Amino acid sequence: MTNAADSDLNRLRALVRTFVDERDWDQFHTPKNLASALTVEAAELLEHFQWLQHGGPEELGDAKLREVRHEMADVLVYLVRLADKLDVDLFAAVEEKMVLNRAKYPAEQVRGDSRKYYEYKK
Amino acid sequence: MTNAADSDLNRLRALVRTFVDERDWDQFHTPKNLASALTVEAAELLEHFQWLQHGGPEELGDAKLREVRHEMADVLVYLVRLADKLDVDLFAAVEEKMVLNRAKYPAEQVRGDSRKYYEYKK
Amino acid sequence: MTNAADSDLNRLRALVRTFVDERDWDQFHTPKNLASALTVEAAELLEHFQWLQHGGPEELGDAKLREVRHEMADVLVYLVRLADKLDVDLFAAVEEKMVLNRAKYPAEQVRGDSRKYYEYKK
Amino acid sequence: MTNAADSDLNRLRALVRTFVDERDWDQFHTPKNLASALTVEAAELLEHFQWLQHGGPEELGDAKLREVRHEMADVLVYLVRLADKLDVDLFAAVEEKMVLNRAKYPAEQVRGDSRKYYEYKK
Repeated sequence: MTNAADSDLNRLRALVRTFVDERDWDQFHTPKNLASALTVEAAELLEHFQWLQHGGPEELGDAKLREVRHEMADVLVYLVRLADKLDVDLFAAVEEKMVLNRAKYPAEQVRGDSRKYYEYKK
Repeated sequence: MTNAADSDLNRLRALVRTFVDERDWDQFHTPKNLASALTVEAAELLEHFQWLQHGGPEELGDAKLREVRHEMADVLVYLVRLADKLDVDLFAAVEEKMVLNRAKYPAEQVRGDSRKYYEYKK
Repeated sequence: MTNAADSDLNRLRALVRTFVDERDWDQFHTPKNLASALTVEAAELLEHFQWLQHGGPEELGDAKLREVRHEMADVLVYLVRLADKLDVDLFAAVEEKMVLNRAKYPAEQVRGDSRKYYEYKK
Repeated sequence: MTNAADSDLNRLRALVRTFVDERDWDQFHTPKNLASALTVEAAELLEHFQWLQHGGPEELGDAKLREVRHEMADVLVYLVRLADKLDVDLFAAVEEKMVLNRAKYPAEQVRGDSRKYYEYKK
């Protein structure tokens, strides 16, 4: 049910597929290239925040928030595209990863602490 | 309609919220920190591909593909969380960005060419 | 003179060359792959700072500072290697870029302000 | 001797210090912010290569190679600046890291193979 044909993520996948096919860009979309493009877009997103204190909406301002929204869209587009090429169900992947995260970071043990899980093993 | 309470992206947002609240980690989740974490996860995803030829499923192999799926999940989790903190509708953001992309990269002009749109202006 | 055979950067280049040749890894070192590896190492460096306030030595602590130093070394190794493959003189490149930076960010105009140069054009 | 006052890396450190001080930008240069800026510059460098085959000089072309050289300069500037703020001797850090790398990737064992060292442990 998570993957109904009309789910958000499936509709985005279709939208991106159409855009790519119209431009004959599939030939450039190896998983390696897409992972690279995804990282570049994430860094472009980060660039908007790098000299700010925290980057909340009031510190960003409306014009920058609009640019941030567009960079976030670019990140999602490449992620959805990579998932398409590798036949990954993104929703199921998050559910699967969250099970691992719950085991690695037991709530009662890590509450209010941001250290990585392996730092707890010591 | 794109944002029905039970859409994929909204359900992921709720899932991540619960995970964060149980650990009292909201205090670390400034937009700036989340953009940083998102970039780090994207790079961890990229790391799996960096010495490969193209990174298709057969070149990756099953074990690496599983790790790749988990890194993709991490990217999506931070993206969904950042969207939550900045009150961004990710689906609408992609739709909005795709309109801009269609204007910047007219299909008939860029077909089969990967150069950036500004290289066409010359 | 900046590029005497015994300059720091030239000695690092020689050191990395030897390490790579001993392992027959040159075949993997396309500029594209090296730029990817460089970005991955930069993100691994960033990971140490992502939940900190500012990341000064006292907040990092000695153990993390040692890891940070190693990640910085990795970044420099890949940068020096990429420069070697593209025949770039890193010292001269910085000198050349600093001339451009001085023109883009005139001291008297940007003092104490972190906005990007293009925001001044408005 | 590696750190003579007139070594390449020390001269770059002085050059960057002067540039920053003239602009009163030291206030923005927390190690955390510099690690972020370094990652962003690395990704801007990567962007030039992401749709190319290998990114050699002939595939890049002269105009792109010039831009690549400038992005490499930006990476080095932020790395040198971060080293300055954390009192890290970059040359010594590489020497130290190379000793670890030699132990992790014994030449006779990894020759011609790009897998990460931990994949050999299995």
